[in-house]
Amino acid sequence: MQNHLTVCGRSYEDFLTTIRNFHGWIAPGVVIGGFMVDMAQEHIGPDVEADAIVETIRCLPDAIQLFTPCTYGNGWMKVVDWDKFALTLYDKKTLEGVRVWLDLEKSKRFPDIYNWYMRLAPKKDLPLDVLLKSIEVAGRHVLSSFPVQVVRYHGKIKKGRIEICSGCGEAYPASQGERCLACQGKGYYETRA
Amino acid sequence: MQNHLTVCGRSYEDFLTTIRNFHGWIAPGVVIGGFMVDMAQEHIGPDVEADAIVETIRCLPDAIQLFTPCTYGNGWMKVVDWDKFALTLYDKKTLEGVRVWLDLEKSKRFPDIYNWYMRLAPKKDLPLDVLLKSIEVAGRHVLSSFPVQVVRYHGKIKKGRIEICSGCGEAYPASQGERCLACQGKGYYETRA
Repeated sequence: MQNHLTVCGRSYEDFLTTIRNFHGWIAPGVVIGGFMVDMAQEHIGPDVEADAIVETIRCLPDAIQLFTPCTYGNGWMKVVDWDKFALTLYDKKTLEGVRVWLDLEKSKRFPDIYNWYMRLAPKKDLPLDVLLKSIEVAGRHVLSSFPVQVVRYHGKIKKGRIEICSGCGEAYPASQGERCLACQGKGYYETRA
Repeated sequence: MQNHLTVCGRSYEDFLTTIRNFHGWIAPGVVIGGFMVDMAQEHIGPDVEADAIVETIRCLPDAIQLFTPCTYGNGWMKVVDWDKFALTLYDKKTLEGVRVWLDLEKSKRFPDIYNWYMRLAPKKDLPLDVLLKSIEVAGRHVLSSFPVQVVRYHGKIKKGRIEICSGCGEAYPASQGERCLACQGKGYYETRA
């Protein structure tokens, strides 16, 4: 019944459109991420206020931001830059949750997905529409999960004391020292005339 | 002409609704962030493909993600955790751009905004609707900007070689060592029975 597939409470078509509108294109990683969120949400249940931890900066953060209330800017999604294709949704209060990941062993049954993730197929040999079709057919069959207790990275990051930097006059956290990081020469920019 | 105020090409009402739907509530920081994006976009011009750098994990990343094509997951927005209320939009090709920040000196003319940012007003003395009204009236009058040349954090982060972790069997970057970070005991979770 692929025609009636729903992901994260949406029709598959709406699911893909939502991804395109936010992410800019229908990236395979965000689509798989949507299936991961869908699976995690089912484990967690609808009545739990869940926070999210994502283990890669690639694609997955957008799946979380689109299909859960957690965003980067509201602090309910944390990102650890481990380059693992995995995410955890967990109860804010009990810190119990579920971790879901792209299981490469399972993905061997769907060689397009395996080859894409392991970067074994040159892009010209694996057109996007073919890969996306494999992902749709595979759905959760390439995913695994286990229940977890979150022991780090949960909770709010406290804001420290704010001072005015004597260099640039901007507000900055006093914990950075006498001047802000940019005025310490660690900035990412040079001013132009 | 407050009635006809548009921000990032939207009516002010639509602007606020967009923030609420994504961020969960109309957070003052995201609203100011929207004005910052609006100002930066005007400097950059409509024909430039711009990437973004945000200098705080709080609120501002959501303004970028909502009102530009840049998202965390597509890699066009980078976040540096400096706790400064500033953002840069820059031309992907020339790396020339503009940095916009909340100028505290200017914000003294709008004490609600100054007191909110410096956390000088207890929440009960500064109701959200009052603060939001001040932000709407202030608009760009609390912002400053200068042109910049981006010298770090631009461009794509290259993905290194992927291996299968001998501990968990998951894919991980070979650069992390013989096993993935989670299997090295640096994980954020414990498994539950």
